[in-house]
Amino acid sequence: MSTSFTLAVDGMGGDRAPDMVVEGLALAAERNPSARFLLVGDEGRLSLLLARHRRAASACTIRHTAETIGNDTRLAAAMRSRASSMRIAIDAVAAGEADGVVSAGNTGALMALAKLVLKTVPGIDRPAIAGIGPSARGDVVMLDLGANVVCDQRNLVEFAVMGDVFARTVLGLTTPTIGLLNVGSEDMKGDERVRAAAEVLRVSHLAPQFHGFVEGYDITAGTTDVIVTDGFTGNVALKTGEGAMRLVGELLRQVFSGSLAARVGYLLARPGLERLREWLDPRRYNGAVLLGLNGVVVKSHGGTDAQGFAHAMDVAMDMVMHGFNDRIREGLTRIMALTVKDAPPAAPQPAAP
Amino acid sequence: MSTSFTLAVDGMGGDRAPDMVVEGLALAAERNPSARFLLVGDEGRLSLLLARHRRAASACTIRHTAETIGNDTRLAAAMRSRASSMRIAIDAVAAGEADGVVSAGNTGALMALAKLVLKTVPGIDRPAIAGIGPSARGDVVMLDLGANVVCDQRNLVEFAVMGDVFARTVLGLTTPTIGLLNVGSEDMKGDERVRAAAEVLRVSHLAPQFHGFVEGYDITAGTTDVIVTDGFTGNVALKTGEGAMRLVGELLRQVFSGSLAARVGYLLARPGLERLREWLDPRRYNGAVLLGLNGVVVKSHGGTDAQGFAHAMDVAMDMVMHGFNDRIREGLTRIMALTVKDAPPAAPQPAAP
Repeated sequence: MSTSFTLAVDGMGGDRAPDMVVEGLALAAERNPSARFLLVGDEGRLSLLLARHRRAASACTIRHTAETIGNDTRLAAAMRSRASSMRIAIDAVAAGEADGVVSAGNTGALMALAKLVLKTVPGIDRPAIAGIGPSARGDVVMLDLGANVVCDQRNLVEFAVMGDVFARTVLGLTTPTIGLLNVGSEDMKGDERVRAAAEVLRVSHLAPQFHGFVEGYDITAGTTDVIVTDGFTGNVALKTGEGAMRLVGELLRQVFSGSLAARVGYLLARPGLERLREWLDPRRYNGAVLLGLNGVVVKSHGGTDAQGFAHAMDVAMDMVMHGFNDRIREGLTRIMALTVKDAPPAAPQPAAP
Repeated sequence: MSTSFTLAVDGMGGDRAPDMVVEGLALAAERNPSARFLLVGDEGRLSLLLARHRRAASACTIRHTAETIGNDTRLAAAMRSRASSMRIAIDAVAAGEADGVVSAGNTGALMALAKLVLKTVPGIDRPAIAGIGPSARGDVVMLDLGANVVCDQRNLVEFAVMGDVFARTVLGLTTPTIGLLNVGSEDMKGDERVRAAAEVLRVSHLAPQFHGFVEGYDITAGTTDVIVTDGFTGNVALKTGEGAMRLVGELLRQVFSGSLAARVGYLLARPGLERLREWLDPRRYNGAVLLGLNGVVVKSHGGTDAQGFAHAMDVAMDMVMHGFNDRIREGLTRIMALTVKDAPPAAPQPAAP
């Protein structure tokens, strides 16, 4: 596609920002020659870093601000500031200056500010963070990955609806299967929330796609295309799975450097092992999408490197180019009308944090 | 040790019971010649299976019952039955006929019946399921793994206290470090429960060992020796980590059979790869312990095989032989007195399932 569009980038979000952000932007700019970027943050530092990358610099406008939302910034303070790099980047989307926004900053602040500025899609109570991960049967969508640490049954049903549209749009599946994450697959397992959400899904239009409860094993087994859970569990599951793979990777490195024979063995199996390493590389799955908002908002992992950040930018640009958000909004509006009809009243929600 | 003791075994619990149970008992009996077993279940089927194993048969008394608690049995029904194989096995511990009990049956029923029959240790509101898993820095204790799908701050603090004693006793650590599982490591991350529990732990006698919040990555990184979480999150995390390792294992098998060179590579690296496979084998970690009860109760994974079940029996016999439960009870009573003093009143608890 040759249509030009602009991506707003929070230049100061992430553990290794702004360096990692600018390096990532440079990679993404090489891959997307028609894109323009609005880079928000400390102009002095950003322009110094950008000077190393001629193409990125020419596609990029810097908007200066000295304010940054750190990982330690309290949510209330983050919400008050109208001059943080994250806020200005989101404002640019609301003002139509940019078509989407990417940040590797504080997840809670990004979600709260995006919700405040861009508003949620009608019918959605709370937006969710969705991500894609590897499984034995192809890519799997999981949500919520941490936007909502306390969820009620209604939220879980909405996540199922959004996950369905996301899997149709992004993974290109015609009838994605949906599983609700629980401590067991039997109907009476779990807490009140998941059982109530399952009851709604079983009578909704999603019933034919709804697989029922799934367990932790099922995420990487690829039992369903979509895994629905609350943000606390989803966040822990995501990081636990990544950590487990990292442990195995580390142990494999030790095995392959443990003896001369093993080193030769590694060289012989190397092409396959390299493909495996690349396929499982968490950076390939970087770029979690904030679903349910009137705008494309992509959250990069805070600890990622330039390559991971560039991947998150690719995800945002793909979504912008393919009018993703219009499609998800259309789908959601249509689907929510059906779902809400069948839903029993929501259970009282535990005190939010 | 040559002291004789008796282990009660639920012959009918588990996906592949009673075959898997009897095969596992046979393995455990070979390894523990001084042990006696009280095997509860369908006498006809059990004695037929036992007939294949002379040593196990001679160390084993069968107590017949036709009633079984299945995975689909509702908790209320499981509680009413006084003649289920699980109930009779637990009753044998309460009556002093057996020193401990092992079951691969329904976790919820095992926890509820064990609590009803054996009662909790004074000072413990709810028992928890603890397990041991692999990390980059040695074995890690995690609890709760699914006994309590809804927990409040007080439960989490109790889990920390029990996890500490468990790590001291079973892993032999003098000052185990303790982490509270959350969606981020910063103080303000997470829900009300985890933040309130962290506040209590920071002023308790466990403060020097308390590392604060840990994330999913930290489980396999071995950041702390003990990982404390609610039963919903812990169960999902356990299974997600296992699932992720299983996926990598499956993909590695594909890589190593993908070409002749890779097959030769596997043979060269085989000793190390075999050691790694054995080290990560989930069966090696089978045997979750129900902590906080007046008796040794070990839950085997329902889907395990004979080798895994034998390992769970080993864990129970180790605990019995080393007077584990007396030590944990002593430690708990002493420690709870300290902790409760410092604890603010517990927050109102969300409706239990």
